Amino acid sequence: MKCGKELVLAVPDGDDRSRHICRACGTVHYSNPKMVVGTIPVHEDRILICRRAIEPRYGLWTLPAGFMENEETVEDGAKRETLEEAGAELNGLSPFAMFSLPFVSQVYLMFRARLFTPHFAAGHESLEVKLVSEADIPWDEIAFPVIEETLRLFLADRKNGAFGFHSGTIHRRI
Amino acid sequence: MKCGKELVLAVPDGDDRSRHICRACGTVHYSNPKMVVGTIPVHEDRILICRRAIEPRYGLWTLPAGFMENEETVEDGAKRETLEEAGAELNGLSPFAMFSLPFVSQVYLMFRARLFTPHFAAGHESLEVKLVSEADIPWDEIAFPVIEETLRLFLADRKNGAFGFHSGTIHRRI
Repeated sequence: MKCGKELVLAVPDGDDRSRHICRACGTVHYSNPKMVVGTIPVHEDRILICRRAIEPRYGLWTLPAGFMENEETVEDGAKRETLEEAGAELNGLSPFAMFSLPFVSQVYLMFRARLFTPHFAAGHESLEVKLVSEADIPWDEIAFPVIEETLRLFLADRKNGAFGFHSGTIHRRI
Repeated sequence: MKCGKELVLAVPDGDDRSRHICRACGTVHYSNPKMVVGTIPVHEDRILICRRAIEPRYGLWTLPAGFMENEETVEDGAKRETLEEAGAELNGLSPFAMFSLPFVSQVYLMFRARLFTPHFAAGHESLEVKLVSEADIPWDEIAFPVIEETLRLFLADRKNGAFGFHSGTIHRRI
């Protein structure tokens, strides 16, 4: 958005796809995948999870994550989302997993992190926030496949005693 | 872009930032960081680099990289950019480095990769493409700090005999 006037769909010079172009100022408005940045916040052997107070998947459990904003780093975005949704401060962020979700044009970037202190509180987008051990993860009530996959990879790596960086694709919506 | 009509700047309900909102259909047009996906294509001990045929940094050297498109995975985007800019096909992609560039609201995701065959050709956005050994990298003519940093990390890991996944922030423009 530069001038806010009407847009038309056309292929810009030297491009090979249709883009939205402003009739007034000529600016090409590209539409690209959005990044979702989030964390697996850990305190001792437990993981902090949030119950969603918003659609989609209202009432189901997730990890703190949300759309990255302009002019921030991926790490700062992941910390901001964790503070907003779970009232928790983190340290020791390590990149853990990246997932492409081509059906919604999103890329998830999830970090491992430690809670700075074991204090947290539900933000506006959460009904409830709690620390759970592996045995208490509500697998049947996880909001999104990408979150389920992140938790499974995290627990598998922890069992093996070594954390890697994972990259994958999520194809299903539910 | 849904209907293409005029936009106004306002804070949506439940949000904490100004966004561009359509006067006609009410759609909120979020502006988020863009992902740049690229590769370090390797053949034996040499790296494939491209001389830019476009601004910015016309005539300087870079690695194949460009904006990720909707409905593709990060790996597919990195392969597509390598084919478009360097006429090269790849296999064995591994995530290597992620850089936040908050001053331009971009995130770079660079993959290590092997050339499928030692064949390549300059695409429309390249003046020239070539395989270089470490001693022949034109350090004074690299187009962007993020590319220089990617090359330095790659060479350091290769010397150490173990490749990691790196995450960092680039603060400078040149």
